Amino acid sequence: MFKKVLIANRGEIALRVIRTCREMGIKTVAVYSTADKDSLHVKFADEAVCIGKPQSSESYLNIPHIMAAAEITNADAIHPGYGFLAENAKFSKICADHGIKFIGPTPEMINSMGDKITAKDTMIKAGVPVVPGGEGLLESVSQAKALAKEIGYPVILKATAGGGGKGMRVVWQESDIEKNYNTAKQEAGASFKNDGIYMEKFVEEPRHIEIQVAGDRYGTVCHLSERDCSIQRRHQKLVEESPSPFMTAELREKMGAAAIKAASAIAYESVGTIEFLVDKHRNFYFMEMNTRIQVEHCVTEEVINFDLIKEQIKIAMGEKISGQSYTPQMHAIECRINAEDPYNDFRPSPGKITTLNTPGGHGVRVDSHVYTGYTIPPYYDSMIGKLIAIARTRDEAINTMYRALSEYVIEGVKTTIPFHLQLMQNEDFRKGNFTTKFLESFKMV
Amino acid sequence: MFKKVLIANRGEIALRVIRTCREMGIKTVAVYSTADKDSLHVKFADEAVCIGKPQSSESYLNIPHIMAAAEITNADAIHPGYGFLAENAKFSKICADHGIKFIGPTPEMINSMGDKITAKDTMIKAGVPVVPGGEGLLESVSQAKALAKEIGYPVILKATAGGGGKGMRVVWQESDIEKNYNTAKQEAGASFKNDGIYMEKFVEEPRHIEIQVAGDRYGTVCHLSERDCSIQRRHQKLVEESPSPFMTAELREKMGAAAIKAASAIAYESVGTIEFLVDKHRNFYFMEMNTRIQVEHCVTEEVINFDLIKEQIKIAMGEKISGQSYTPQMHAIECRINAEDPYNDFRPSPGKITTLNTPGGHGVRVDSHVYTGYTIPPYYDSMIGKLIAIARTRDEAINTMYRALSEYVIEGVKTTIPFHLQLMQNEDFRKGNFTTKFLESFKMV
Repeated sequence: MFKKVLIANRGEIALRVIRTCREMGIKTVAVYSTADKDSLHVKFADEAVCIGKPQSSESYLNIPHIMAAAEITNADAIHPGYGFLAENAKFSKICADHGIKFIGPTPEMINSMGDKITAKDTMIKAGVPVVPGGEGLLESVSQAKALAKEIGYPVILKATAGGGGKGMRVVWQESDIEKNYNTAKQEAGASFKNDGIYMEKFVEEPRHIEIQVAGDRYGTVCHLSERDCSIQRRHQKLVEESPSPFMTAELREKMGAAAIKAASAIAYESVGTIEFLVDKHRNFYFMEMNTRIQVEHCVTEEVINFDLIKEQIKIAMGEKISGQSYTPQMHAIECRINAEDPYNDFRPSPGKITTLNTPGGHGVRVDSHVYTGYTIPPYYDSMIGKLIAIARTRDEAINTMYRALSEYVIEGVKTTIPFHLQLMQNEDFRKGNFTTKFLESFKMV
Repeated sequence: MFKKVLIANRGEIALRVIRTCREMGIKTVAVYSTADKDSLHVKFADEAVCIGKPQSSESYLNIPHIMAAAEITNADAIHPGYGFLAENAKFSKICADHGIKFIGPTPEMINSMGDKITAKDTMIKAGVPVVPGGEGLLESVSQAKALAKEIGYPVILKATAGGGGKGMRVVWQESDIEKNYNTAKQEAGASFKNDGIYMEKFVEEPRHIEIQVAGDRYGTVCHLSERDCSIQRRHQKLVEESPSPFMTAELREKMGAAAIKAASAIAYESVGTIEFLVDKHRNFYFMEMNTRIQVEHCVTEEVINFDLIKEQIKIAMGEKISGQSYTPQMHAIECRINAEDPYNDFRPSPGKITTLNTPGGHGVRVDSHVYTGYTIPPYYDSMIGKLIAIARTRDEAINTMYRALSEYVIEGVKTTIPFHLQLMQNEDFRKGNFTTKFLESFKMV
């Protein structure tokens, strides 16, 4: 049993970990930069150590400072939260070398999933579906035709040096290969001075659906069902929910089994997430594995009544997990409340919170580290809270979320609350009719 | 479907009802006294009408003012909350006479349970156990002996004009009847100038356990399991939980069936509560029925994932209930956060809240109408919030409650938070080892 856990993070996730530690009777040590001295994670920890200047490199990413804090406070374990050092294999190793338990996977597990090519190879060997595609660059139209036939239409041609859609072409049938091959190559050459192109299966109407997994050191792995995180803006998740409105019992069984295969392939020990792209035909493809707790873990906790941080700590202490997989019993939605202006391209809006009213009541969970008079520093991400609504059905959860958002008063800074209020009233969102492209055409009114 | 509901109440329960109405798409009208103009229930309702001066008789108990507010705002229903007019049969009738639906039972149902003697008779006829006792005063030692034999020992002798334990004697065996009969009569005569005494079954180590029920106008009644409200101070509940740590599956089945009988006996329509005393042998006795929503309804909502206010509104709209009875799936505890000084005999402590931090995170629900800068008026009850902790087991729920209480910062007034923190650490409380007498010997440290 850990006696004292140092949380190498800040903000809501640091507070989140402190909460569970307190419930488990484990003492906590907060670390903080000088910019965070008034944060709740500092106030609510049993001890707090200042580890440096506001810039992350001087504090939350500074391994020697964090290790020094752990040693002077006699912490026997470190929880890395998410971001910062959470997927830093070197940090995990240094902890182990110092006899301090890193609450997360081993350096080897982090490395095996941190490198995308290694991860993809591991998944292919484990029989987990990945987006089909050719290895290396295309050399001719005939080679492109042969590969497309093998992968199956539609396919997408992409510039190897590319980005922003340049040199990118979706091809739906063989008769269109030649024309698109030539255009893509030409565009790539003109845009990037490199006309190399490669081919992948085109994922139609992609949804981002991920499976929460947990594994222990005895080789038991289970899945804790899915989260739908398709509501993204430039690859930043804004809203997550469980279950996915696109899910079926059959698909959950298949994706759950694939996620267990993926985690078992690296003998994964801790909680983690397997991210998949799911197309409109319900084919699913491995994207990546996150070897840490995620921002959106709360929706899973609420639909299966399960404290994931507690589970993570117990696994780190060497406890066995039951191995039982879970199916959502409720519906939960999470909105990320960021200090950003949704009317101004989501520009960050740090500053002092002059008025705060936090929503409450049945079916509402709030995870937040801010309070009236708190000043949001400009140095870190702009998330100031997570609002989670829980109900028996998705419709009811959306109604509860709308109600809670309308009670959430934050003055002094701009927030994403107006965005979420409009999203909750959007017909397509309410119907569950959305893909990862949804926000590209969403307009604030 | 109601279009607009007026809430004839204030504080957290008014806000509670507004929340569910908003989730159901029903417009709301708040009423308020001049002392409550800054309350959240006023801010969050769609409309708000001032109904008079701070004194309840001039506002929240003033039926003409409330009916006028309902008529000018075109409300088609009134939710009475708890307290104030919630169990006022005349108010229920006036609503009906004005064609405004009273969200609660009919005047007849309220009356039948409002009068204790009528209620007891109704329960006896329905076969619901009540505390056994003689009808009328005792006339001789031999009559007392005969009655005690019928009721079964232990019995209690009570002064008909009594109070404060005077003229009260517990008798454990027949050989002690004569002595105690004489002492009780003598004490009663000396204390109250009336030496009349009567006899009841003595309820050993009583616990207050109540069963939540719901009934519709089509005669369907179900029970939604129990709440243990034994933690009381001078008959004021301070902590409630579900399930009861004293409950067994067998007892729940029996008490649930008795509660359904009780509600069915008056063809009850709405949500309501049957309060029982349960002795150490798990015999249970009807005390009274509350024909309204109760303060502690939240713990039931959390253990069965059920919005009781929504159910109550749907029943009032004429919807059928399923009739399914529920068993707790989780454990929930509620602490009443009152503006009272637990170090000074729980003296009320109205005033301005200068600092507020509301707890959050997994397993925590807060129902409160206060905010930083809010002034608690001295005119009403001193409850400023309800903190509910939910977990898979009772031990975990207590740990979550302790954690949440330790995060709950309210400055500017005294609160019951220090009391609850100490209670959550009390060994007997943690073991579930308590009766309604528990707080008599509980000392703050």
